[in-house]
This record gives sequence, C-alpha cells and structure tokens, in this order.
Amino acid sequence: MDALAERARDLFRGLQDSICAGLETLDGGGQFREDAWQREGGGGGRSRVMSEGRLFEKAGVGFSEVFGAVEGELAKVMAGDGPTFYATGVSLVLHPRSPRIPTVHANFRYLGRGSARWFGGGSDLTPYYLDEDDARHFHRTWRAACDRHDPAYYPRFKRWCDEYFQLPHRGEARGVGGIFFDDLGKGASPEECGRLLTFVRDCGAAFLPAYLPIAERHLGDGFGERERAWQLVRRGRYVEFNLIYDRGTTFGLRTRGRTESILMSLPPLVRWEYDHQPEPGSPEAALLDVLRTPRDWT
Amino acid sequence: MDALAERARDLFRGLQDSICAGLETLDGGGQFREDAWQREGGGGGRSRVMSEGRLFEKAGVGFSEVFGAVEGELAKVMAGDGPTFYATGVSLVLHPRSPRIPTVHANFRYLGRGSARWFGGGSDLTPYYLDEDDARHFHRTWRAACDRHDPAYYPRFKRWCDEYFQLPHRGEARGVGGIFFDDLGKGASPEECGRLLTFVRDCGAAFLPAYLPIAERHLGDGFGERERAWQLVRRGRYVEFNLIYDRGTTFGLRTRGRTESILMSLPPLVRWEYDHQPEPGSPEAALLDVLRTPRDWT
Repeated sequence: MDALAERARDLFRGLQDSICAGLETLDGGGQFREDAWQREGGGGGRSRVMSEGRLFEKAGVGFSEVFGAVEGELAKVMAGDGPTFYATGVSLVLHPRSPRIPTVHANFRYLGRGSARWFGGGSDLTPYYLDEDDARHFHRTWRAACDRHDPAYYPRFKRWCDEYFQLPHRGEARGVGGIFFDDLGKGASPEECGRLLTFVRDCGAAFLPAYLPIAERHLGDGFGERERAWQLVRRGRYVEFNLIYDRGTTFGLRTRGRTESILMSLPPLVRWEYDHQPEPGSPEAALLDVLRTPRDWT
Repeated sequence: MDALAERARDLFRGLQDSICAGLETLDGGGQFREDAWQREGGGGGRSRVMSEGRLFEKAGVGFSEVFGAVEGELAKVMAGDGPTFYATGVSLVLHPRSPRIPTVHANFRYLGRGSARWFGGGSDLTPYYLDEDDARHFHRTWRAACDRHDPAYYPRFKRWCDEYFQLPHRGEARGVGGIFFDDLGKGASPEECGRLLTFVRDCGAAFLPAYLPIAERHLGDGFGERERAWQLVRRGRYVEFNLIYDRGTTFGLRTRGRTESILMSLPPLVRWEYDHQPEPGSPEAALLDVLRTPRDWT
C-alpha cells in the first residue's frame, strides 16, 4: 500500500462521514446505522444505512477498503496484472420517500494492481418527475467541479454517464445523468495520479452541493397515490439496471463481496406492472421522453 | 419447420389455454388479459397476464413461437449450428396475494437449430412459509410424471433443479425445487425425440395437478402484516434470481426478446430491507433452513 492509496482511503472515509452528516441534517429525523464488516481475503468496510427517515425511505452510504490476492472469480473480472490488488471507495444511493425528490447515486473509488492504479466514479440523478431546474443545477455543479481541473472532463464524463446508465431492454436511461468516469490514471505518472486524487476529492466535495438544494427545493411538494405508484414502477427500472447491468453490483456479487452492502442500493419498495404505459402528454410521459433522449443540461 | 416442431407448438399453445382456464377457475374472479405480439425477425407469441385477481396478485402465462436467422447477440448465446433456429414454449410464473400460498414457475420449450433439436423445462415451487405436505405433494406429482417415462428422470431432474435455482450470493435456493431439465434429445434419433415430446406433454399436463391442490389447501389461511412483509422481502430474492441468474430471462433480454413478456415473471410488489434476518426459531427462519439445505421430498 503506497502513499496515494493511503490518501485515497482517508479521503473516502472522511467523505462517508461528511456526506452522512449532511444527509442526517437534511433528513432532520432519521439516523444512519453502521455495520462494520471484514473481508475474508483482506480488508473490510463500514456500511451505513438509514431506514424510514423523515425524507429518506432508505439511504445507504458505504465505505470500503479491500485488498489481497487476485484469485478465483476476481482473477477473471479484474483489470491489470499482478498477484495482489488494493481497492478503496465510497458509494451511495439515496431513495427519498417523496416521488417529487429524485433518487441519486454517487461512487468514487481507487484501485491498484501491480504497477497500475486508477480512479473511477461519478454521480447520476434519477427523478420520478422531471424538473428541468433540478437537472440543470445537478449538471452545472458537476461541470464546475470538472472544469476546475480540465475543461475536457465534463463533456467527456457527461457523455460517458449517458452511455453507462442505459437500460437497453427498455430503450431508456436510468435518469437524467450526471458524470461517470473510469480507468482515470492508468499508465499515468505518480504526479498525474496525485492530481487525479485532487480531482476526485473535489468531486466528492461537490456531491452535497449537487444534491441537497434539489432535495430541499421539493421538501414541501405534495404527492398522492398516483405519484407514489409511478415512483414504485420507476424504482423497478432502477433494480433492473443495478442487477442486470451495473458493473459494481455484478462485479461485487460475482467476486463474493458482502451481499448486504452491495445490495443496499436497492429501493425499499418496488412495483412491477405488466406493460405499464403512462398516459400521453402526462408528466410521467414527459419523464420518459427525456430518458429516451438525453439532453445537454448546461 | 418439421412435424416435431409443429406438434410441440400445438402442444404448448394448448397447454397455455388449459392452464389459463384452470387458473381462472381457481382464482374465481380474475381473468387473463391477452397481448398477441410479433417478433421482428420471425414469429411471435401471446402473453396472458392476470392482475389483482382474487387469489393471484399477478399471474403471467406466456406462449411463444419464434424463428429466423441466428444473428447478432443470438449467435453468441445460442447453442447448436446452422444459420436459422426455431423455438417454441410455454412459460408461467404465478404470484398469489397470500403469503400462505407458494409462488410457482413452470416452463416447457422446444428448440431446433440445424440438425439439432432439444427440449427443456421444469417447474419449481417457492413458498414463503414451509408446509412439508405441499413440498411432498409437488415433488411426488413430478416424480410420478417422470417415472412413467424413465425412473432415472426424477432423481436427475430434481438434483438439476436444486442446482439451477440457486442464489450463490445469498447461499440460498429460490424455493423447495421441483424438476429442471435441458438439452434433452440433443443427438437423439427422431423416434427418441418423439418420445421426449410425449414426456414433455405429460409434464405439462402435471402442472395443474401439482399446483392447484397446494393453492386450494391454503385458500382460507389467514395472514397479517408480518407474513405480508416477509413475502415482499422474499419476492426480492425472486427478482434477484430472475434478473441475475435465470438463463431464460438474461437470454431473452440480451437477444432483444419482448421485454414485457420476459419480465412479466417479476412480482407485483417487492421490498428490499437492509440485512433482514428472521428471528431464530421463527417460521421465517425455518424456511431459510430448508432453502439452505435442499431435502429429499419423495
């Protein structure tokens, strides 16, 4: 374990703390419950879940630092060379109770194997009802964090996000996107990797400013059975994405990660209705339109 | 398309009719709604769904007959040689409202490609509360259907079922099993394939006798919030199996089958709770015991 890995780990651990603190303040009622866990082959983590909060029906924020031999399934799915690996990261998915408040995901991670080391991460917003101001605020916050480091980052990572969070069997994106990046720093110098860590740190620090104002803006918005039913159907798409396509989830399950920590991203309550079609011209149909045709939000 | 394929198709189409009729009688209220659909590359099907019936919260029974060029994703995932394929089958998943009545799945199919033709299928029971009489009745019915054709079938197909319906990330089976078989008839003579069709026909005919008495026995059983909550959590495992592991589902989605017909197997309402653990010694824990250690039920 080198100095960069150590700095990344400390960063992610601190990020879990600051994000959980910010979310508890926002929720104004619910508290995170922590489960510390250890990995058989090396390392461990701390999973924090808030259930039935005031705002959040379920919120999971995980930190992990795992390392050890690259063996078994891990050898089949992990990039790079070398007999051992090191990985640390923070990952979160927040499921608000109100369909007026979007679900959000963020993840930042550092991996090392042999001489290779790289960063991955991103954050994406999944509204149930489209509010263009929300999407613009979210994207502008990420654009600002990216632009401070490289003006090429945001356009590239925004597109990557739109491509990654796709449900091809539905012909829909998971949400209105955000940013997504991976393999950042592969083959780069130690100095460049140090700069990338600073970029990832700034992204981590941008999460609460990207999300909190959106949640706060809709705290008082009313909703009824129709909106709740739509939210549960849309949460089904979230489950489909995570279990079928999400690399973190499928990688984690295949390599026998801690199941409960991996699947704490799944929504608390979900509906599947056969051939559910929103009424043309309805707010529900308007959301589908934007999920089918990604927009430029900045 | 040869005579065997034609006989298989007629068999499965008739089976869909007779099973739907039997289930409507059992439900005593709900009716199936049919969607006929066509496949772009050739063929089509008829999907039948009952929603919010008296007994069934959601029940899907699908018939399909698809054929055409083996191209794209299909070429990567389909066994056999030859530029064209033919596949026909019937598939069902029933989700009762009451947690006292098990969920059940059955599927019977015929595939042909080049000179190869084969049958696959099976049926498995997923109770929320273990009733040993139910499990015994279900397995004995399948054993009887198998034994009429080959005494080696049931032991082999029962074990295959236990192995197939596993959630390795949970260390659990999906339910108490049943029978599962695939590739039956590959390399066999036309006469042998004809005999296999008769076997599959007898399996199809055994479905209602295998399931109806179980559902009827528990029609009047009471349940409360605790049992309903447990059912929704367990339905989450069903979703996990279908979206992560089930070959029919993943094959169908990858090869751009009709999404709504493939996913009509998903339960209507589902819960994911972080680290849900039933109380030791409870009926919920007793179910987990049997899911972790498959039993001999005949």
